[in-house]
Amino acid sequence: MSFEISPDVALGQTRKAPENFIGRNDVAFVNRASEPERRLFFKRTLIAAASAAAAGAVGMPSLVRANTLPTDGDPAILNLPEHTTGLGLPVAANPYGQPSKFESNLQRRESPGLTRVSQASVSFCPLQSLFGIITPSGLHFERHHQGWWDIDPRQHRLMINGLVNKPMVFTLDDLLRMESVSRIHFIECGANTGMEWGNVAVPTVQYTHGMLSCSEFTGVPLIKVLEYCGVDLKKGRFVLAEGGDGSSMTRTIPMELIESGEVLLAYGQNGEMLRPENGYPLRLVVPGVQGVSWVKYLRRIEVGDQPYATKDETIHYVDMMPDGLHRQYTSIQECKSVVTSPSGGQALLNKGFYNITGLAWSGRGSIKAVDVSVDGGKNWKPARLEGPVQYKALTRFNLPWVWDGKPAIIQSRAIDTTSYVQPSYRTLREVRGSKSIYHNNAIQSWAIHADGTVHNVHVG
Amino acid sequence: MSFEISPDVALGQTRKAPENFIGRNDVAFVNRASEPERRLFFKRTLIAAASAAAAGAVGMPSLVRANTLPTDGDPAILNLPEHTTGLGLPVAANPYGQPSKFESNLQRRESPGLTRVSQASVSFCPLQSLFGIITPSGLHFERHHQGWWDIDPRQHRLMINGLVNKPMVFTLDDLLRMESVSRIHFIECGANTGMEWGNVAVPTVQYTHGMLSCSEFTGVPLIKVLEYCGVDLKKGRFVLAEGGDGSSMTRTIPMELIESGEVLLAYGQNGEMLRPENGYPLRLVVPGVQGVSWVKYLRRIEVGDQPYATKDETIHYVDMMPDGLHRQYTSIQECKSVVTSPSGGQALLNKGFYNITGLAWSGRGSIKAVDVSVDGGKNWKPARLEGPVQYKALTRFNLPWVWDGKPAIIQSRAIDTTSYVQPSYRTLREVRGSKSIYHNNAIQSWAIHADGTVHNVHVG
Repeated sequence: MSFEISPDVALGQTRKAPENFIGRNDVAFVNRASEPERRLFFKRTLIAAASAAAAGAVGMPSLVRANTLPTDGDPAILNLPEHTTGLGLPVAANPYGQPSKFESNLQRRESPGLTRVSQASVSFCPLQSLFGIITPSGLHFERHHQGWWDIDPRQHRLMINGLVNKPMVFTLDDLLRMESVSRIHFIECGANTGMEWGNVAVPTVQYTHGMLSCSEFTGVPLIKVLEYCGVDLKKGRFVLAEGGDGSSMTRTIPMELIESGEVLLAYGQNGEMLRPENGYPLRLVVPGVQGVSWVKYLRRIEVGDQPYATKDETIHYVDMMPDGLHRQYTSIQECKSVVTSPSGGQALLNKGFYNITGLAWSGRGSIKAVDVSVDGGKNWKPARLEGPVQYKALTRFNLPWVWDGKPAIIQSRAIDTTSYVQPSYRTLREVRGSKSIYHNNAIQSWAIHADGTVHNVHVG
Repeated sequence: MSFEISPDVALGQTRKAPENFIGRNDVAFVNRASEPERRLFFKRTLIAAASAAAAGAVGMPSLVRANTLPTDGDPAILNLPEHTTGLGLPVAANPYGQPSKFESNLQRRESPGLTRVSQASVSFCPLQSLFGIITPSGLHFERHHQGWWDIDPRQHRLMINGLVNKPMVFTLDDLLRMESVSRIHFIECGANTGMEWGNVAVPTVQYTHGMLSCSEFTGVPLIKVLEYCGVDLKKGRFVLAEGGDGSSMTRTIPMELIESGEVLLAYGQNGEMLRPENGYPLRLVVPGVQGVSWVKYLRRIEVGDQPYATKDETIHYVDMMPDGLHRQYTSIQECKSVVTSPSGGQALLNKGFYNITGLAWSGRGSIKAVDVSVDGGKNWKPARLEGPVQYKALTRFNLPWVWDGKPAIIQSRAIDTTSYVQPSYRTLREVRGSKSIYHNNAIQSWAIHADGTVHNVHVG
């Protein structure tokens, strides 16, 4: 298999590639590699497209400028692919576009057997193959408690009641006409990375950290609607948010968060209406707080004078501490990060250059810095943060790395604007023990073996 | 049709709504309206969901806390909708999720008859119904010159040749392994708003300004790859970008832009791989420059010492000036803005509160301010810019407005970080005449008639 430019495609005649042509073998060292020439690629799953890209060099682009093709030339001689000579598909062939058929392996996936029924389960976001910070809405993770619905927005209502002067019922178009704001925020399930408490070492980042997504949300600040209803902010220090699906999802939100203006009655996600799996036509957006509080199919907000102690904040989403007691209302998602590539289940075919990339986030504010270690935490290097670095949003980081072919352990450690540093497993377990399900924000370690395979390990 | 809470749904017994309940009629004034109570809604297309929302108040959420439902109650009495009592769909029912079926009217659309064949045409982005700044990839505008293709990424190659020491051919996985950056940028076709030069007054913002989208792009800075190929930056002051489809799309890019690090070999768009209609698997991203230069299905970059004068920069995408000469290489998309709602084809049912919203952008930098007028340009008020305000990206603006029911003309005027102010039609025509097709960045005017209908007009 040769990656040099095929000598017979140019101008329809056999031609030796010029001496200064360089084949694909060199590309691994394009940035700063110091190793001799050897091919080195991820074996699989780094990028769906890349995984398939080991095929031969057919369909090579022509060397001729297409607009200077000799008019008497025979296109067949030029060995041009069909898309270079034919007429393609018309505009609006897909009035709502879809990904390439070559990307069909890129899916959100349920972890088989994780729950008894798939209506009360999770599908995980394929973080290992995503770029930037915006999660494509079609790949957003799902967590349903009694299945999802495509609710008719004409029928949907939002009630505001409790400690307000004017209890009210709103239609969706009432809300759509109000002042709106748009903000980029992450959402993370409180149970994300939960299997790791028990040393399960789930094999891929899709399953360790894939209950995580980030979108541009649009909606009305809840405080504006509460103020219109005459909320009693002196007594009414808590809010109950209630979903319209059969799971009776109800969560308490402290009024301080709502008064900050951050909590949104959101209908928009990544430029369009919410997706049905994400609460269409209305969900609560509670930046920095675990996903369960972002109540989907939102139908009611009640203002009260104390926490509501609903089932989903007393039986579920609590932290079993070493002394056997459950810790309640630990809703903020603490500062956390993860290297998404290279990551578990991927494999490096050989030593040389790699772009280490990952995501960092904090429920307390913005990301200030991310450090990366390739030796299991002995030495750390600051990664480059991609803009925009947004408040309570995912932040993408990148760091160039040349692998020397020896075993390595890759870690990332995030620091947020409160100067909180993401803890190691040891530090976290000293406080929390190991019987929790929720709220694991420890440093993730990926071990690279000498054969290039990448594995989830618990160290440090 | 009543919008008060239906008195018979609560606890299964007839109950008079409390006196302090306020119906939907009041909602119009939730923010700062000063008019007496009257219902006022957009008749159509403001939001696909909202347009249908005039149906009756069935499926009202129950007043009872769902988790305190009496166990001996009959759910039928409570009149609960199916989604509140039933088991919904499982996770990953759609491994790649889709919009709600109630949003199916939200489409990118071809303007019938605009071009002779739909393979060399445009589909316009439905700006009137979008939120925030990120364009959903499924609604991204399309401009094809010979149709679109879903090209096998394993077969695709990028050649770098011309004034470089080491001409090379890259596979997609070569590029995917290099250092990558992610940035949010707008893309606008140079012909966007082109019909308005001829006083056509296309009726809706989808057709006046819908050759405009904004995404988070991920890829490799072109300069890095050129440097690896040993580019001669002294002589090589221009680059030819060549697409792989049958249109022989070729455009000259000045080396200064590439040296700035802004020009990307992009494979990622909004977190996933590019969509086929947008150049999958590889396109050029040239921030601030008209869309035709963002060559799709990119197969070749040639470094040269002068502009290439290709057909798409000599016959097309040139500006007919008043003196009869064509102006060439006017590629930068100048500062521009448009109110997306209320906009042409929409209708206000009555006076009262509205959220004026729109988009602003500049190919020269970031947006510094947007002013809005509701009296055809006599008085201007600064709009609120939504964050993040990014370099060469769309910026969302909002301004609350109470319509007094009288005829009004809504305009927006953007100012960028170079202090350039978006011109009026009169100002623009004094320089450009009226025979252009491309590069119209004049202030857009929407006339609101006393009956609430919104129309495209050319004033000022």
